[in-house]
Amino acid sequence: MQFSSALVETAVNEFSKLPGIGKKTALRLVLQLLKMPPEKVTAFGEAIIKMREQVKYCQRCFNIADADICAVCANSMRQQQTICVVENIRDVIAIESTQQFNGVYHVLGGIISPLDGIGPDQLNIEALLHRVQKERPEELIFALNPNIQGDTTIYYIQKKLEDMPLKITTIARGVAFGGELEYADEMTLARSLQGRLPVESYVSGGRQR
Amino acid sequence: MQFSSALVETAVNEFSKLPGIGKKTALRLVLQLLKMPPEKVTAFGEAIIKMREQVKYCQRCFNIADADICAVCANSMRQQQTICVVENIRDVIAIESTQQFNGVYHVLGGIISPLDGIGPDQLNIEALLHRVQKERPEELIFALNPNIQGDTTIYYIQKKLEDMPLKITTIARGVAFGGELEYADEMTLARSLQGRLPVESYVSGGRQR
Repeated sequence: MQFSSALVETAVNEFSKLPGIGKKTALRLVLQLLKMPPEKVTAFGEAIIKMREQVKYCQRCFNIADADICAVCANSMRQQQTICVVENIRDVIAIESTQQFNGVYHVLGGIISPLDGIGPDQLNIEALLHRVQKERPEELIFALNPNIQGDTTIYYIQKKLEDMPLKITTIARGVAFGGELEYADEMTLARSLQGRLPVESYVSGGRQR
Repeated sequence: MQFSSALVETAVNEFSKLPGIGKKTALRLVLQLLKMPPEKVTAFGEAIIKMREQVKYCQRCFNIADADICAVCANSMRQQQTICVVENIRDVIAIESTQQFNGVYHVLGGIISPLDGIGPDQLNIEALLHRVQKERPEELIFALNPNIQGDTTIYYIQKKLEDMPLKITTIARGVAFGGELEYADEMTLARSLQGRLPVESYVSGGRQR
C-alpha cells in the first residue's frame, strides 16, 4: 500500500501488528480514527498505554489486577475456600460473565501440552500447590477446556494433591444447551452419559431452565 | 463482560468503539497487547495519538498529508496537468498501489447522494472547479465507484466544466479481470459492450496482459 502521509502509514503498520488485523482492516480503523475528535483518539491511545504500563497480575491467583491482589480475591463477599482453576484470563472473564460462581480463581497461564513443549514448570501449578497447602481450601473446581491436554493437567494436579483433605471437581462436560444430540461427537456424548445426573438434582440444582 | 481490572475494562471499551470491533475482538486485542513489551504498546498508542493530532489535509487536493501540500502534489516528477477525481482517501491509496497513475488527485470527500442528504455543497466540488479555472489541467479522470451516485456526480461536474478546454474521461467500467462473464450483472455487461475497445489498442495500451 502507498500512503501520502508517513503519520498514517505508521499508524496503519502499528495496527496491523495486532493478530487478525490485516493492512486493509488497519487502514479502515485508522481512517475511522481520523474522523473522530482528536481528544477521543488521545483518550483511546492513552487508555492502551496506561493499561499496559499499570496492569498487574494478582499475586495470589494470577488474574489481571489493578493492585497486588485482584478485585475477586480482595472481595470478602466471595467464598475464598472455593478455588476455580482455569487456563487463562479469558476463562475468568467468561465464568464471571455467567454470574453463577461466587468463589475465587487460580489462573494456570496455560495447560500441560508436551507437544507444544509446555510442561508443569511453565505454568502456575507450583504456586497452586503452595496455595492449597497454605490456604486449605474446601474445593478445587477445574474449569479447563475439555480436551486431552486439559485432562492431563487435571490428572497431574490431582495426583499431586492426593493426600490433601480436599474436594476436587471438574465442570460438567456434556451436550451444550441448545445443541443437538445427533451432531455431538462420540467423546462428548460418551462423557455426557457417564456423567448423567438424577433428574431431581438437575431440576433443583439448575438456576436456569 | 465482567473484568477484574478497570484498566483492562477501559481499554476494551475504547477498542470496541471502533467500527467492526465487538467486545470479544476488543478483548482479544487487549490481551494480545498485554503480552507485548510495554515500549511497543507505548509506540502503538503514541503513533495513533500523533497521527490524529498532526495529520493534515492537502490544501490543493484534500488528500491526507503531513504538510500543507501532500506528497503527491509536491512531487515534481508527477504530471500536474492530469487530475484524477476520487471519492475518498481510500481510493487514492488503491490507485497509488497500482503504480500505473502518474498524475495528481482531487479528493471529493464523498459523492452526490440526495437520498443520504449529500449535495454538491458538502463536497470539495467548488474547490475542484476553482482549481480547474486556475491550473488549467489537460485532463480530468473520474475514478468514482460505478453506480448511480457516481454517475450523477460525474454528470454534475462535467456540466459545470462544459465551457472549459479540457479532456474529461472516466475509468473503464467492465468485467473485472479474472471474473466470469456469466456471473456479471446486466449493467456491467452492458457497459462493457458499450465501452468496447479495438483489440490492437487493448494489446498495445495495456501494460499488463
